[in-house]
Amino acid sequence: MNKIRVGIVGYGNLGRGVIGALKQNPDMELFGIFSKRDLNENEIGTKCFKFDDAQKYKDKIDVMILCGGSAKDLPMQTPYLAQFFNTVDSFDTHAKIPQFFENVDKVAKSSNHVSLISIGWDPGLFSLNRLLAQTVLPKGKSYTFWGKGLSQGHSDAIRKIKGVKAGVQYTIPNKQALNSVRNGENPELTMYNSHKRECFVVAEENADKNKIEKEIKTMPDYFDKYETSVNFISEDELKREHSGMAHGGFVIRSGFSEKNSHQVYEFSLKLQSNPEFTANVLVAYARAVYKMNKLSMSGAKTIFDVAPSWLSMQSDEEIRKNLL
Amino acid sequence: MNKIRVGIVGYGNLGRGVIGALKQNPDMELFGIFSKRDLNENEIGTKCFKFDDAQKYKDKIDVMILCGGSAKDLPMQTPYLAQFFNTVDSFDTHAKIPQFFENVDKVAKSSNHVSLISIGWDPGLFSLNRLLAQTVLPKGKSYTFWGKGLSQGHSDAIRKIKGVKAGVQYTIPNKQALNSVRNGENPELTMYNSHKRECFVVAEENADKNKIEKEIKTMPDYFDKYETSVNFISEDELKREHSGMAHGGFVIRSGFSEKNSHQVYEFSLKLQSNPEFTANVLVAYARAVYKMNKLSMSGAKTIFDVAPSWLSMQSDEEIRKNLL
Repeated sequence: MNKIRVGIVGYGNLGRGVIGALKQNPDMELFGIFSKRDLNENEIGTKCFKFDDAQKYKDKIDVMILCGGSAKDLPMQTPYLAQFFNTVDSFDTHAKIPQFFENVDKVAKSSNHVSLISIGWDPGLFSLNRLLAQTVLPKGKSYTFWGKGLSQGHSDAIRKIKGVKAGVQYTIPNKQALNSVRNGENPELTMYNSHKRECFVVAEENADKNKIEKEIKTMPDYFDKYETSVNFISEDELKREHSGMAHGGFVIRSGFSEKNSHQVYEFSLKLQSNPEFTANVLVAYARAVYKMNKLSMSGAKTIFDVAPSWLSMQSDEEIRKNLL
Repeated sequence: MNKIRVGIVGYGNLGRGVIGALKQNPDMELFGIFSKRDLNENEIGTKCFKFDDAQKYKDKIDVMILCGGSAKDLPMQTPYLAQFFNTVDSFDTHAKIPQFFENVDKVAKSSNHVSLISIGWDPGLFSLNRLLAQTVLPKGKSYTFWGKGLSQGHSDAIRKIKGVKAGVQYTIPNKQALNSVRNGENPELTMYNSHKRECFVVAEENADKNKIEKEIKTMPDYFDKYETSVNFISEDELKREHSGMAHGGFVIRSGFSEKNSHQVYEFSLKLQSNPEFTANVLVAYARAVYKMNKLSMSGAKTIFDVAPSWLSMQSDEEIRKNLL
């Protein structure tokens, strides 16, 4: 059987994760990496191409996995590449998804390709579980908790404070809130009272630590409404203890049957590497994209449009026998 | 918009659960209940029909939800009713699913109906999570734990034994095994050594208890490979202590990325009423069956064939906006 030929666009943490994930999926093979930067093929160990040359390879690649960022890369890249390729991406700017979907859909429909958007774990597997939970427990309340994990945006915000040399911020679900949800108390939660924020900061020499701590804790939106802790550490400790990319979270729905029986649906991930897991999810869904296009589908799609069997390397008979 | 017209076959705990679940889904309406028994319409509060008359109503019902048992009812009822109706059932004799699928598929294909089999939580949502977990973490190990809870199928099986007046069966997970899995120790477990089965049985007067116990413990697939205990109790005690129908369980996959990052995927349910939850799942999937048939699909299908969006009352635009 011919392998599914995959191209990767972008060579950051996510792109590197996809290279690894493809090695775990023997029905797929890597065609090469496309980047705006000049990449060193020998160093990377795979073929590298210029982003602007992608179109030339449209008959050599079954699915393009787009590993760029949602702020600047994907809004341009997905609609552009959907002219020539089936694509899958991890577009995650929630508020802009409807517009992004429309833009991509128009192109993918007219080029007869499938463009699966917003794949990963949130949006992605968490979205899928929010939908499933709601349909099987129509009367109830859904909650999403993130963490423990590093938040890029909040870490950036810390690093912009005067006197801060380096730092990271972890988002941590509030255990009391988590237990209240599981116990069926259906609390009214906001992002602010269901999560706390833990900061590890390397201060510059002679910096005023009290001032830094106060500045963090009072930063509007980012920290002021949260329970926030600030820990000053050395640069060595930061590198040693806080360079991992662990993350995870919970989707919980607390529902009630018509006879008022309490039913709790819970999905969770505990990830030692956030980008490597996201990469694995993208690769599984790239297989689905390939199959969907073979079924003559086209246009923009989301995780809600993907029948689970399309994700599997196994035949329908095998999954019925082994997994049902 | 016309409501989806639903028929229920069978009036046990599951059938009663479906009546309740339909009330939580305003896009559906109950046509009536079909039973081999004579039911009292006034008592039940809905129209009742004889099972053998079902065929007469083939143009009045969009989906039949089959609420019979897997041991004796469904192997006959699903293929029979698939001649006239779209169906959804909760067939749960794992070892016999491939044959059941073939039998149903033949009929449903030639009658142009969709017959969705083995829906509920296991088989059902648990199967779906086993598949998802395996595809997003190809290198890893999956575990399913059930309970503590009452198993409907196993209790039915006990009650069909000659000399048994009433009885229930609890499935109980091994806590040590559960913790070992969560901690990423990837223990070697089979479904048989990670659970035990506890039966509470009311025997008929003068029944041969030794024979009943032996018949339970040697029942193929259901009990023969498990550590099983059988306790004979009075009818009073059964009613007093064992009339709850709580259940639940866990699907956990402990996996590793190509770079060896440990990634844990966990899905769990904690249900105060097993039949009421299964009923809610059947109703959500009945909506999918209706949509799949409108999309000109036919034949036997499983949870792996159902795109998540088909489960929802909301439009694709709404679910993208609200849940992605």
